[in-house]
Order: sequence, then structure tokens, then C-alpha cells
Amino acid sequence: MHSMSWEDTCFKLLNQTKLPCQVEYIQCQDYKIVADAIKRLEVRGAPAIGAAAAFALVLGARQIAMDHDFWDKFRNIAEELRQTRPTAVNLFWALDRMLSVSSRFVEKNDIQGLLDALEQEALSIANEDKTVNSRISAYGAELFTEPSAVLTHCNAGALATVGFGTALGVIRQAWSDGKITRVFADETRPLLQGARLTAWELMQEKIPVTLITDSMAGWVMKNKKVQAVIVGADRITLNGDVANKIGTYSVAVLAKEHGIPFYVAAPVSTFDFNMQTGQDIPIEERNSSEITSIAGVQIAPTGVDVYNPAFDVTPNEFVSAIITEYGAIRAPYTESVRRLQQKVKGES
Amino acid sequence: MHSMSWEDTCFKLLNQTKLPCQVEYIQCQDYKIVADAIKRLEVRGAPAIGAAAAFALVLGARQIAMDHDFWDKFRNIAEELRQTRPTAVNLFWALDRMLSVSSRFVEKNDIQGLLDALEQEALSIANEDKTVNSRISAYGAELFTEPSAVLTHCNAGALATVGFGTALGVIRQAWSDGKITRVFADETRPLLQGARLTAWELMQEKIPVTLITDSMAGWVMKNKKVQAVIVGADRITLNGDVANKIGTYSVAVLAKEHGIPFYVAAPVSTFDFNMQTGQDIPIEERNSSEITSIAGVQIAPTGVDVYNPAFDVTPNEFVSAIITEYGAIRAPYTESVRRLQQKVKGES
Repeated sequence: MHSMSWEDTCFKLLNQTKLPCQVEYIQCQDYKIVADAIKRLEVRGAPAIGAAAAFALVLGARQIAMDHDFWDKFRNIAEELRQTRPTAVNLFWALDRMLSVSSRFVEKNDIQGLLDALEQEALSIANEDKTVNSRISAYGAELFTEPSAVLTHCNAGALATVGFGTALGVIRQAWSDGKITRVFADETRPLLQGARLTAWELMQEKIPVTLITDSMAGWVMKNKKVQAVIVGADRITLNGDVANKIGTYSVAVLAKEHGIPFYVAAPVSTFDFNMQTGQDIPIEERNSSEITSIAGVQIAPTGVDVYNPAFDVTPNEFVSAIITEYGAIRAPYTESVRRLQQKVKGES
Repeated sequence: MHSMSWEDTCFKLLNQTKLPCQVEYIQCQDYKIVADAIKRLEVRGAPAIGAAAAFALVLGARQIAMDHDFWDKFRNIAEELRQTRPTAVNLFWALDRMLSVSSRFVEKNDIQGLLDALEQEALSIANEDKTVNSRISAYGAELFTEPSAVLTHCNAGALATVGFGTALGVIRQAWSDGKITRVFADETRPLLQGARLTAWELMQEKIPVTLITDSMAGWVMKNKKVQAVIVGADRITLNGDVANKIGTYSVAVLAKEHGIPFYVAAPVSTFDFNMQTGQDIPIEERNSSEITSIAGVQIAPTGVDVYNPAFDVTPNEFVSAIITEYGAIRAPYTESVRRLQQKVKGES
């Protein structure tokens, strides 16, 4: 299963809103189709939307290649893509990488050179994401010293990335190493990424999975059915605070109460090295209909007031370790995240 | 709005599975229809199923009044009703009250006398429930010393009782006293009693309500949007452990983490004075389809493994107070519950 694929003139996105009942791909030759797919969550997951936005910028640049005001339009397209979702930092990280490449071509006004370089950069982002995930998975699997059942929230799998997955990558690796016995998947209301995507991915891999409602996580821990929690992330700040799918914070509090480690698996591209703490992370609020109806069926009174934040922020003190492609880092995070940043700088 | 009404020859139950989109009553002249309604959650809520079972036994006794083996059949019907659901103790409490009445008529084999007495006892159970709820509500409202927003889970309202409600009774009273500003209602997966019933009840009363998914409760507390939690109960043991709708335990842990009081509102009929701790409470597990589909729409992969406990148990150390018709009791619960039991014995 692939969340996306690039075929020279066409970008294909797996429409994740149709899973698990339909496997349907969206053919994108217009960057606006990708932008809409990001907004509608047809593609979702922090690393996946970063890569999708990069490919969208390639499409967008091609669409305006003959226009006399190319550079203005190019920057507008990048800005339009940047506005599609506010919380996951990988989106901005990927677009910044693409813009950084483009800066080399402005002076010479070398549009064909730019188009080629943008395509190469988008492909690099996508390929690196797969490599990064397999490194995260290997480091994460090392944390499991004996056979354990784990709980996960939302979907941080192959679907949330270009391939393999972050949290589910770790699970997949640890499972093949014989160190994971079962996964409890929170269904993850409102949009049910756990029920629709995580359960589906794990079943495809024949990894034992038990689906629960989000409200059951505490009772599952109380009854010692899981020995660890592992989730992905949408943005991590300098102090180690973690923005992730709404409900993650509750799971982290419950894990702490039960003495269960709470692991976050995320690539370096998920770190916002310009932001001190999670209090500054913008939290997207989405339409109330995500809560008041499911698959078009009304499940709440007409006109009811709704609060629908798409993410929450888990403070660093609840995070046992953050697993990156450079290894797992631990508290004190102000120090370990700074060291991580230096390592990344040293390599680039 | 009435969860049930008794009209001499017919018992009417509001079909709560159809709310909020349809207000539809089930006409019951056969006790089996009531038994099925309890099993299917068409009537739910600990006090409501107690009263419904009492009326069902009246119907059942009338159906077999002419039969030569009346007493055997009568006991079988009581047993059948007892088997409808395992966790809420009010069901057994109400049936025990009815059987206690019946014992006065066995020797004389006075069936007509029995039928009259059973009807009177069922009506008493129903009427007392309303009185009890208004006393709980008054005691509960006293706990709110300044205007507060509260969070509730599931539905412990008029629909869960014969009238007025336990947790929602307290909220209704405190709201009319100007001490509650807003209610955050957990939608309460899998069966969405919060979205379908609590939000609906509160909107009917024009009490400000904000619907959230269960996974948002922690984030709502973290952002100081609520100052207290109040829920109902299905069974409370001698040590003050509280069985209630699945998800309650998670909310209690979250409340403790945020220093927010966690109140339980329940009549004395919810106490199981024969059970020492919550570890002995049987927890009903329900069909996986409650999680894998909503309103007939499939939302999870076919054949996925599911864990679906209908209740959980909140240990006494998370419970700030239990509000009964005799006032609020607090820790140490082994002592306060014992004193409550003595008070009840003293009155009966």
C-alpha cells in the first residue's frame, strides 16, 4: 500500500477518506487538487502532507512555466500550499526545502532548470522519508526489551508517511523482531483514523490488532492489557512538547498514571526548531460536522454547539522518549533536542 | 420528556435508540417487549432500567394470572428480567423489591391481591425515583459554590431515570441557581449517549452545552474550560468504587491530574451493599458491531478484532464525593458508605 506515487506527469494520492471500504487513488495534474486533498484529509499524516505539498509545488510550477510573472505566481502557489493546514510543521519544512532549491534559479530566470530541480527535490523528500522511517523503526524496536502489547492513537503508519510509517513502523519492526504481541488501536474520533487506517494497515500486515473506542484506553491500561504507548507527532518544539492528534494528551496522562512508557516516533522534519514550547503551536479547529455526523448520518441534535480541535499538545514531562532517525532522545528535552538540532546542522 | 409512563394496561417506553432524530414510544403489553427494550438499550440508565423491570414484572404477572403454575412462571419471569443486563445493580434492587412484595401473597395464593400490590410497588419505585432525584439534585447543587462549567460523560439525565436525572438533575438544579455556566458533554462512544441524549436533554432545557468527542476531555481540562466533572453510576460497592459507562475511569484519572473534583450522583438503589469492591462487579461486554459500525454504516475493516466493555470501574480514590438522596458522602468511603447503609436501614 502506498500513500502516494509520482509518475513524471501525474501525482497519485491514495484517498484515505474512502478507506477501509474503498481503495481509490486521486490523479493530480493540478496543484489545486493536491491542496484540496490536504485540506479534506484525503492525504493526512505530518510526513505525508509534507511530501504531497512538495509534489504539488512541482505540478504548480509546471502549470505556470510559460507565464511572464512566473516568480510571483510561484511564490503564491507555495503560500497557498502553506495555508492548507496549520499544525503539522512538516508541511512548512518541505515547502521551505523546495523554496530553498528555487532560490538558485531566480537570478538566471532558469525555469526549466528549476522545474527539473524541484522534481528532484520532491523525489528526495519522498525517498528520504522512507529511509528515515526505517531508521526510526529500527531505533524504536530497540526500546522493546521483552514481548509487549502496545496501544496507539490515530494513524502514524505507511499511510501517514511516504512509506513504512513512524509509530507503526516501529511496531512493524518490533513485531517482526518478536517483541510486540498485539496492538490496541484507539478508533480516534472524530475522523476514525485508528479504525479506518491503523486497524486496516495492521490487518494487511497480519499483526494482531484490537480496535477500541478512545474512551477505553484507560480501562485497557488499568487491566494491564498494554505495556507501552507509541504515537506519531505533528509538531515537536524545542522543549520536547508534542502536538499530535486530539486525544493523544489524554492517552499520555493515562500512561503516566499507569506507569506505562509513552513513546513518540517522528522524523527530524517534525521538530520546529524555531518554537520554544507547545503553547505557541497553532491548533487547527475543524468543522463541527466531523462530530455531529458520521458518513452523512446525523448523530447529534441539529444546531448543537461543538468544540473540535484537531490536535492537542502533550507536555514534555509525559513523554518517555522521542524516537527519531538519529536515535531516541529523552528528558531533559531542552538539552537533547538542542543536541539533535546540532547533529542535523552538522550533516547538512 | 419522559423516559417511561404507566397507563393501567399499557407501559410506554421512550425508544432512546431513536433519539435525537425521532421521538418514538414503544407500547408494551408483554413483559418480553420490555425485556428486549432493556437488552437493546431502548431504555437505559441504571434507575430507568430498574423501574422498567418493575413494570415489566407487573405485565408478566398479569399475562400468566390464569395459569395453574402461576408461581413458577412468575419466578421465571423475574429471573428472565434479571438476566437482561449484568452491571447496573438497580435492576436487581427493583426486582428484589417486587419479589419481596409478592412473598406476602404466596401462602394465600391471592393472585388478584398480588397483581394490585405489584402495580402499587412499581408505581412507588417510579415515584420515589423522581423524589430521590430531586433530593440528589438539591444536595449536588450545594457543592457548586461559584459559577462553573462542568463536564459529564454518558447520560445520567431524565432519560436515564424515571424523571429529572441524577448527574443532569444536579446540573439542572445548579444551572437554575446560577451556579453552572456551561456543560461539556462527552459524546460517549460507542453508543453516543452523550451526543444523542445528554446534548438533546440540555438543549431542550436551554442549558448551554458543548459537544466534544471523548478524546477531547483531557484537552478541555488542560485548557481550564471546566471546573468539575459529574457523572452517574451503574453500581457502587461498599468501598466507594464506582461502575459507570466505559470511559468514566479515564475521565476520573484526567480530573485528578488537573485538580478538578470528580462527582458521582446516584441514588441509594445504585449501591451494592453486598459487594466489597469494584473488582467483583461483572462488566458487560457487548457486540463488536457497536464499534465497527454507526447507524448501519461500516467504519472499520471487516473482521477486525474488537474489545467492547460497556462499563468500567473508577476506584474510590478518584471520587471526590458521591451525591445521594441522603446527602453527599466522601472518603473514607468504607466508613461513609456503611453509615449510609445504616441510615437506609433505619428508615425502612
